[in-house]
Amino acid sequence: MPPPDVDSLPAEFSLIARHFRPLCGEGALDLADDAALFMPPPGRQLVFSADAIVETVHFLPEDPPDTIGRKLLRVNLSDLAAMGATPLHYLLTLSAPRSTPDAWFAGFAAGLAADQAAFGVRLLGGDTASTPGPISLSATIIGHITPGQALRRCGAQPGDGLWVTGTIGDGALGLLALRGEIADPTQHLAQRYRVPQPRLGLHLYGIASAAMDISDGLLQDAGHLCRAGGLAVEIDAALVPLSDAARRAGRPEVVLTGGDDYELLLAVPQAREAALLAEAERAAVAFTRIGTFLPAPPSVHVIGGPSALPSGWSHF
Amino acid sequence: MPPPDVDSLPAEFSLIARHFRPLCGEGALDLADDAALFMPPPGRQLVFSADAIVETVHFLPEDPPDTIGRKLLRVNLSDLAAMGATPLHYLLTLSAPRSTPDAWFAGFAAGLAADQAAFGVRLLGGDTASTPGPISLSATIIGHITPGQALRRCGAQPGDGLWVTGTIGDGALGLLALRGEIADPTQHLAQRYRVPQPRLGLHLYGIASAAMDISDGLLQDAGHLCRAGGLAVEIDAALVPLSDAARRAGRPEVVLTGGDDYELLLAVPQAREAALLAEAERAAVAFTRIGTFLPAPPSVHVIGGPSALPSGWSHF
Repeated sequence: MPPPDVDSLPAEFSLIARHFRPLCGEGALDLADDAALFMPPPGRQLVFSADAIVETVHFLPEDPPDTIGRKLLRVNLSDLAAMGATPLHYLLTLSAPRSTPDAWFAGFAAGLAADQAAFGVRLLGGDTASTPGPISLSATIIGHITPGQALRRCGAQPGDGLWVTGTIGDGALGLLALRGEIADPTQHLAQRYRVPQPRLGLHLYGIASAAMDISDGLLQDAGHLCRAGGLAVEIDAALVPLSDAARRAGRPEVVLTGGDDYELLLAVPQAREAALLAEAERAAVAFTRIGTFLPAPPSVHVIGGPSALPSGWSHF
Repeated sequence: MPPPDVDSLPAEFSLIARHFRPLCGEGALDLADDAALFMPPPGRQLVFSADAIVETVHFLPEDPPDTIGRKLLRVNLSDLAAMGATPLHYLLTLSAPRSTPDAWFAGFAAGLAADQAAFGVRLLGGDTASTPGPISLSATIIGHITPGQALRRCGAQPGDGLWVTGTIGDGALGLLALRGEIADPTQHLAQRYRVPQPRLGLHLYGIASAAMDISDGLLQDAGHLCRAGGLAVEIDAALVPLSDAARRAGRPEVVLTGGDDYELLLAVPQAREAALLAEAERAAVAFTRIGTFLPAPPSVHVIGGPSALPSGWSHF
């Protein structure tokens, strides 16, 4: 009986070797072992987050595959940014139909490679599987931080300002643009939907009293800070920072409740505002005060907003 | 304008709070923050693995949901077992159709809870998402080990024996049984397909020269040890240990090439066989020598096997 041909690996292993092995960091053991090894940096607390993204739910079948890889990494990196952590490594699982062309994997891996270089992270391990359904991706990101210095969602106090980084609403408007529902002549909105900007590298420990990233819509996520702090917040819709493209789109209800921003949402005591603005200048990141926390049962009040608002995005 | 009702959370958050928050370990921050915090045990090397399982590919729509949770954890735990690591924590991502009944989540979480207790692991974080496709699950498992003592796939030497734990083929035969293709009067095979047994807690450092777990079929995975060691292996099919149920099934080609065993595959020098058998007795785990590594180009030879063998399972 002829021996199984072990020199020609099944296609799954060839795919991993060609596209994912080049992404490996130290300890990944070339993705050729059952698990990866990692010696933690001494004296540091590790920070972990896992996010899944699904074709047609979080990205579109026609999105360039490199942007899908970058979005997967960036939504996970954004969680580290929300905690004030520094990224190190990630693990990846990928389920795709058997018919997925090799060029898709090549593009996806190229996007990962570009953002590995941009954010200083390396692939530590993962798994590939087939699926009869849409492409389903998951990453677990590993970062580190000085023990006790993680930013938390709890901690806001009455009188603290509510601040955001960057501009709000671009991601959700980008999805509308890609669906042909609004114009996007500069492609700014589509690009922000496909490739969000995790706000890593900011030094907010000792400045922000609470923090999170905005993934499910500004109002819903502001609600999370309220519940975690036992407070209400009043948001002035006119203060919410918009890109030129978002302003032209004229869809304030989408800006306030759409998801996919991946900007930071912060509570900042008035006494720390000068420090916040100094950090904003150092990092060249825009921070905008959009509201105030109030001593009241958890709720989100919007002043000057559109008359009808859907509640935030919920998967279930 | 009425404020969004932040007291009644969207269903996604209720689902997480009811089913997954009770699974949390220290550092998971009640799954209410953007990421989890983890202070690594001093002086220990961490071990990471991530595996995905997909409905209809790795489990069946009619499988009891508790067994799906247990299988997800166990296939990941098996990777730690293959490296000789001790499990600590895991992160979970879950994509399911919006129509998935709450009882499915309750059963899935109950299975996780049972195996958390059985294996001493806790949930550290994760994500839930909707999908228009099959349920897609992914876990990243975190373990620890004495630095430098991980078992690796490389390291087998000519003359080393090829050993397996437990019995081989039950998982793949269980899938055939669940499809109605073979009889399974005791349900032993179906149970082994649904709830594999990760071989944790064995002390094989200094005994095994190479190790991995068998997930893609005995012959294919033996080929991995051959490639990693630059060796051939000769397997005596008559020595491959079978459960009574597998023997009755009479499908040796499935036993040798089917996946889903999650037993360990080891290379053991002859001089360490006494130590291996002592460890087998201590741990009450069966170890069986099924072949010998040979100084030849990587290949897998089977003596006394069935006349036609499909090559191992490949996802792509």
